[in-house]
Amino acid sequence: MSKTARAYTNIALIKYWGKKNQTLKLPYTNSLSLTLDRFYTDTKACVINNDQDIIYLNQTLLDQTQSQRIRNYLDTIRQMYSFNEHFQIDTVNHVPTSAGFASSASGFAALAAAINETKQLNLDKKQLSILARNGSGSASRSIYGGFVEWIAGSDNETSFAQPIETESEIDLTILSVVINKNVKKISSTVGMENSVKSSPFYPNWVTLVASEIKEIKQAIAKKDVQKIGEIAEHNAMSMHALTLSANPSFTYFEPETIKILQIIHELRQKGILAYATIDAGPNVKIICTKESLKQVQKYIEEQLSNVTCVVANIGSGIQYI
Amino acid sequence: MSKTARAYTNIALIKYWGKKNQTLKLPYTNSLSLTLDRFYTDTKACVINNDQDIIYLNQTLLDQTQSQRIRNYLDTIRQMYSFNEHFQIDTVNHVPTSAGFASSASGFAALAAAINETKQLNLDKKQLSILARNGSGSASRSIYGGFVEWIAGSDNETSFAQPIETESEIDLTILSVVINKNVKKISSTVGMENSVKSSPFYPNWVTLVASEIKEIKQAIAKKDVQKIGEIAEHNAMSMHALTLSANPSFTYFEPETIKILQIIHELRQKGILAYATIDAGPNVKIICTKESLKQVQKYIEEQLSNVTCVVANIGSGIQYI
Repeated sequence: MSKTARAYTNIALIKYWGKKNQTLKLPYTNSLSLTLDRFYTDTKACVINNDQDIIYLNQTLLDQTQSQRIRNYLDTIRQMYSFNEHFQIDTVNHVPTSAGFASSASGFAALAAAINETKQLNLDKKQLSILARNGSGSASRSIYGGFVEWIAGSDNETSFAQPIETESEIDLTILSVVINKNVKKISSTVGMENSVKSSPFYPNWVTLVASEIKEIKQAIAKKDVQKIGEIAEHNAMSMHALTLSANPSFTYFEPETIKILQIIHELRQKGILAYATIDAGPNVKIICTKESLKQVQKYIEEQLSNVTCVVANIGSGIQYI
Repeated sequence: MSKTARAYTNIALIKYWGKKNQTLKLPYTNSLSLTLDRFYTDTKACVINNDQDIIYLNQTLLDQTQSQRIRNYLDTIRQMYSFNEHFQIDTVNHVPTSAGFASSASGFAALAAAINETKQLNLDKKQLSILARNGSGSASRSIYGGFVEWIAGSDNETSFAQPIETESEIDLTILSVVINKNVKKISSTVGMENSVKSSPFYPNWVTLVASEIKEIKQAIAKKDVQKIGEIAEHNAMSMHALTLSANPSFTYFEPETIKILQIIHELRQKGILAYATIDAGPNVKIICTKESLKQVQKYIEEQLSNVTCVVANIGSGIQYI
């Protein structure tokens, strides 16, 4: 019996925003993330004697439409590794929507690892990262724990993530502040496509990311959480500047997003370490230290009634259980 | 007795955001505005036998600190036109804070015109625009009515505004939506300085403005209010992208600003003409037609309780009364 693959979510501190190749999911820039310990996807794949894949998500059978993206991905894997078998996939997602994290990173990383396990492809981590990237760009980073850099590369073989080694633990915690309301979402795929096509600022984003990746790696090496926070916040806000300056302009911000950003500024004025990062949605993830976390959470919960706070720490890479 | 000079406020459809010369207030780019009919400043200047200027604002004598910027400006004028007299200035501002418009544009335009009148400098409009610019950049545009372009220029003599002639009236109305709360403001001077210095996107802003000025002038010539709105909204959002991408990042947006932007998107989905422009503050000015104005105002007032709506139409240039 093959093992279940477990992959954790990750949060980008230097964002992935724009594909230079849609099919291969090759990004315009490197990106840099932190794998988190709290949210993960467990996936098991079994070869079946069938001409179609059968996909269960949280013990529910998905129909053709719901499973289209996963089945397309399995077709890609079959083509890449020249085999024909179909699979029954059992996926359990421990990334509740209410946590404000995307499940595609952990989902496609776990699926890539599950196929690797079942088909005994014996992929090394680099190859596994390439395979995961073909499912969802950010999944390439969830192969590794801790801080991870995804190298943009120029073709399928050169675009993969790799871990950033740190000598000892860094005192960094993520507080995810989730806005409790239904928000009509522009998918990150559509959002980044519109930014690349129509923001006059996109060419400078590419240059910015190159220098911020370099700077944040220096801050990580020094375990300078404040500097990590400063760079991550500026990078995230610059990504959102690409949506504002797209044509037509759009934003993922909700009124509550601005309110949380204002609170983070107030906290810093009080000398409490807190920096914001925001993905393709309205929720704010706050970079804290163990010391600042409690004060930040208390202040947020006092000031805002309609939000949920979720804490996550630095997590590990792919596991087989 | 010399006459009172009256100057109207203007709203930039293509924003002025960044000075290449702080002293002369020379901008990095051209900008383009619409003079409004509703808010204005009345200023009268009398030569006095005194070694200091005496400044009354709304019939209240200003102290040294309050009047510093105006007295510095009068020093500049004395130097430019080589005379020594001091003045009593009586200014009445009909630009209530609650209207959400800056008073510096109408204020410095009226003051420049009042000195021109009293000292019989016989300045033509171009010279008057140069003089007003030395007080406040956007004041250069309030010399003229209707649509006005401020040419960036390269020195004091070549940086001035000029009117954009239109054959007949354009059906365009501005609804200013003012958020009723005290907001700690970053001045536009500080905001633009930070953007120029630290936004990685600033160089592309300069290129963007050049092409959007060209496009909006074509739309004005065609009296295409929808196109004018589209360009103005994109330009304003791109200016705010320069604040988000400044380092450290900042924003003039309040939670209510995002709410109003969301409402404008909904209105457009209903086929109602409404486009946003936002200056260095949280209030939103909506570009409407006479037809759409009532629907827009009704919808905004239904959805938001804590705002004030103010309507303004196309206004005229400097008057002497």
